[in-house]
Amino acid sequence: MFRTHNCGELRLQDAGKEVTLSGWVQAGRDFGGLTFVDLRDRYGITQVVFDSDDNAPLAERARKLGREWVIQIAGVVRERTNKNPNRPTGDVEILARELTVLNKSKVPPFTIEDDSDGGDDLRMRYRYLDLRRGPLQKNIIFRSKLALAVRAYLGDQDFVEVETPNLIKSTPEGARDFVVPSRLNEGQFYALPQSPQTFKQLLMVAGYDRYFQIVKCFRDEDLRADRQPEFTQIDCEMAFVTQEDVLNTFEGLTRHVFRKMKGTDLGEFPRMQYDEALRRYGSDKPDLRFGMELIELNNVAQGKGFKVFDEAELVVGIRVPGKADLSRKQLDALTDWVKRPQIGAKGLIYVKFNEDGSVKSSVDKFFDAEALQAWGGAAGAEKGDLMLVLSGEDEKTRKQLGSLRLHVAAEYDMIPTDSFKPLWVVDFPLLEWDEEASRFHAMHHPFTSPKREEVERMLNGDHETMKSLKADAYDLVINGAEIGGGSVRIFDRGLQEKNFQLLGFTPEEAEEQFGFLMGAFEYGAPPHAGIAFGFDRLCAVMNGQSSIRDFIAFPKNNQGRDVMIDAPARIDEQQLKDLNLRVTVEE
Amino acid sequence: MFRTHNCGELRLQDAGKEVTLSGWVQAGRDFGGLTFVDLRDRYGITQVVFDSDDNAPLAERARKLGREWVIQIAGVVRERTNKNPNRPTGDVEILARELTVLNKSKVPPFTIEDDSDGGDDLRMRYRYLDLRRGPLQKNIIFRSKLALAVRAYLGDQDFVEVETPNLIKSTPEGARDFVVPSRLNEGQFYALPQSPQTFKQLLMVAGYDRYFQIVKCFRDEDLRADRQPEFTQIDCEMAFVTQEDVLNTFEGLTRHVFRKMKGTDLGEFPRMQYDEALRRYGSDKPDLRFGMELIELNNVAQGKGFKVFDEAELVVGIRVPGKADLSRKQLDALTDWVKRPQIGAKGLIYVKFNEDGSVKSSVDKFFDAEALQAWGGAAGAEKGDLMLVLSGEDEKTRKQLGSLRLHVAAEYDMIPTDSFKPLWVVDFPLLEWDEEASRFHAMHHPFTSPKREEVERMLNGDHETMKSLKADAYDLVINGAEIGGGSVRIFDRGLQEKNFQLLGFTPEEAEEQFGFLMGAFEYGAPPHAGIAFGFDRLCAVMNGQSSIRDFIAFPKNNQGRDVMIDAPARIDEQQLKDLNLRVTVEE
Repeated sequence: MFRTHNCGELRLQDAGKEVTLSGWVQAGRDFGGLTFVDLRDRYGITQVVFDSDDNAPLAERARKLGREWVIQIAGVVRERTNKNPNRPTGDVEILARELTVLNKSKVPPFTIEDDSDGGDDLRMRYRYLDLRRGPLQKNIIFRSKLALAVRAYLGDQDFVEVETPNLIKSTPEGARDFVVPSRLNEGQFYALPQSPQTFKQLLMVAGYDRYFQIVKCFRDEDLRADRQPEFTQIDCEMAFVTQEDVLNTFEGLTRHVFRKMKGTDLGEFPRMQYDEALRRYGSDKPDLRFGMELIELNNVAQGKGFKVFDEAELVVGIRVPGKADLSRKQLDALTDWVKRPQIGAKGLIYVKFNEDGSVKSSVDKFFDAEALQAWGGAAGAEKGDLMLVLSGEDEKTRKQLGSLRLHVAAEYDMIPTDSFKPLWVVDFPLLEWDEEASRFHAMHHPFTSPKREEVERMLNGDHETMKSLKADAYDLVINGAEIGGGSVRIFDRGLQEKNFQLLGFTPEEAEEQFGFLMGAFEYGAPPHAGIAFGFDRLCAVMNGQSSIRDFIAFPKNNQGRDVMIDAPARIDEQQLKDLNLRVTVEE
Repeated sequence: MFRTHNCGELRLQDAGKEVTLSGWVQAGRDFGGLTFVDLRDRYGITQVVFDSDDNAPLAERARKLGREWVIQIAGVVRERTNKNPNRPTGDVEILARELTVLNKSKVPPFTIEDDSDGGDDLRMRYRYLDLRRGPLQKNIIFRSKLALAVRAYLGDQDFVEVETPNLIKSTPEGARDFVVPSRLNEGQFYALPQSPQTFKQLLMVAGYDRYFQIVKCFRDEDLRADRQPEFTQIDCEMAFVTQEDVLNTFEGLTRHVFRKMKGTDLGEFPRMQYDEALRRYGSDKPDLRFGMELIELNNVAQGKGFKVFDEAELVVGIRVPGKADLSRKQLDALTDWVKRPQIGAKGLIYVKFNEDGSVKSSVDKFFDAEALQAWGGAAGAEKGDLMLVLSGEDEKTRKQLGSLRLHVAAEYDMIPTDSFKPLWVVDFPLLEWDEEASRFHAMHHPFTSPKREEVERMLNGDHETMKSLKADAYDLVINGAEIGGGSVRIFDRGLQEKNFQLLGFTPEEAEEQFGFLMGAFEYGAPPHAGIAFGFDRLCAVMNGQSSIRDFIAFPKNNQGRDVMIDAPARIDEQQLKDLNLRVTVEE
């Protein structure tokens, strides 16, 4: 037996007990004839003391222990003289009688402390050491408990967790599919699922009524900072429900897990139409933790001879409270920021409403103080506030300003931390017109239903009508992060065919790729709807963090590599031969 | 709102309520002016009645409903005249006032009944209809609840569920790896995990102490009747534990889920050494629901001039109670059965201990009645019993007879159903000598530790010593099915290197493939051990069934194909090009 107790559980009332503990040497120090060792495991840290008066050879051995060595000690619990109130075990220590070194450790390449001195690359390479650090253990354990809480809640509500297959079929839409060559079926490939979408719909056809799954999904795409090729979803589907039922059910889930895991009552979630979110926040996932809403300035800013504004479809601004004191340099930096290609604005105009009542702007040549005060009036600006203004095409400009809003708020610490602001964004468009490719994309996915009252317009409308169709599609946003999204689904073969046609599928392509689903719709498919939450993202947001990587035990880097195990890698010629494959690039 | 209640919840005390139900038309019948419709969903069946006296057009529409149509009805709950005691809702019916057809259905290709008339292929192709059948729904819901129970139990015991990656690295040992070409890393491949073995060990090094995961694993192998290319494990690992701790923990889990899900107390699990299991049952996974142990007959059967026996290393038999009345034809069939290449026996000898006291055998030429009675004595045979005897090399013959034992018991219904007989098989050999390849294989896997007292022999022994090394490796067997297996692991770099060397790895190969793990052992790896349960198998065994396929929502057929979605399939040339691959077989 390696231990009678773990390193986090002994208390004053255990004094006098003979105990055995095992763990890692967190730190050691000598003081007089005593050697103190902090022994650590997942559960906590317990102080062990070796007394050279009591047992000199043992104390001698203890002095030679190194950091991260794995040891087992046996001894007696006793009250500490110098108690450590910051540690649950801080009232006691173990006077050691025995010491066994279970395993030695080389000096770790970085310190195993809450704030490590290791760089990202080093920590990824020795992930098993990084995972020993307190903050990461806390994250990974949080994730495990959150998954349990989600499952218990949904299980109590008659949801059935069904495992859907990982080896499925690639679709031509699936440029981002990972594929898996089959040995038994020569020259053929499976694909890894980007989501279990069609399977969960089939489960509704099969009568499972309420499905969920916490499930790995896969996407082979160029990795942005915070994307992973494999990620985890809380995937759900319900039959005989409306959008209202889905929103209520998953608002219930979300409130439950915040209450259980964070002790926070989120209250009722506000709802906002997609159009309104874009209009007020320049984003389909507005962060409601702070204001700075977009203010349309066409009325007050156009017709004053400033050509840039006069020719723009939209002039729009935000009021940044108390930031009239930004320096020229700071304002230039913001201008540079919006001009970056990712944002794409041509320039940024500012107005300072100074504390002394004066007004100063970058367009003083065109607008006098009175005109600028009119802008301020529109925005509710007060002395000391700053206004930032963009102009151009309506939707594009709103999105640019929406990004700037987030950037300014983050840059100047204007976002309250430890506050959670959930929001349902609803009434998304069904289709998105891709000007470049001259085709429609599905805004959510091809299985999303238009709103019931839109079906007629969809079946009979012209091209412009299609652009304006609204869907029963919805996103859950918390603190400006998209936690999940879903929709009411099409469950009628004819409507699904029409949707594929709008999306540019020939009938043959639609049949070849999704014939099984459309076929299923002919055998008694119930009305159904669903949602999927990004589980990695939910973990991060609940802990006020922005990177999902710290909530994944073994993440890939942004080249999609696991640098610890060195994957992906070349494979044997024989393996390739068995798979009937040849690699067309040199090593 | 599609429903106020589901189809399984209305009772007599609901009489008088206005309700709305949605579901599938299970059956309909007309009787006088009444039309009865059985409305079905996952929760049950409720009778709906349409009265043509009450509403003739509505009743007329109800008469035209077809099987599996999806409908919504509104009406009043009332007491039934003819109650159906076999149905929880059987005391009531709904007098319908409204009827909405939500979706029609074509006539299903097979009946949606507990005993379907559909063949395997048809049911696989329309899996979403097969999944509507009661027995399959029961299985899939059982699986979901079992997973919840497992997670709750392990969670309560401080196990952390950690998701390990699905995109890992292929190993040359991994001839059965599925591989995944990477687009971002040209010419390189990930592999899908056959198990999360190395990751769970790294989690122990990282201090997670108690890990579990219900996780998909993948194996690209020729599929026997009851194998699937993707399958699910309950995967576990613990630090600072001995074999005893692991057995106790997972015996606890197993007893808990049997109690919770089946209402059965399994009692304490017996343990049997691997050697003893082979000796007494000719199997490392003995089915203890019935006797028929192997009886060594060398003493009584050799030296009587029957050359086959005299030259054999072992003569061994089983006593089949009460089967002396098997016909010649039945005995011939058993002889044919053991001579099949899968079993490989040269012949089968029988002895009948007839009810009238006479003895009859297939070797009467060599053995008189007295000699045969000596066999019977050794086996405890009584009047009416049959003995079946094989001879040859020791281990091979025992395994053949072990197979015959199972076959005979199954063939003649001698296995008690509804009984669960668990068994820990322990003390497996560390290594298995492969005569053909002239090399050792790891009996469990290359990370399994020899027993502590064997380490010296392992480090210094000769070839014969290696064959006799025992490991702290164990299997959980229930009713003759291997539910799970595990071992105490090596956590010392030197010992791991030695093991790889015994398994035929060069130091370079070992380093290239498992350097990350051996490296981790140098940074304070704790002693650890683990186990993995086959989750699909556990579901099947708990329900007294032998096929895992009925517990998997969307299984592959035995060519590894999903015939419903038609996967795997050819992929686009463009997709191949993006992956730098060429397929070397024609379509």
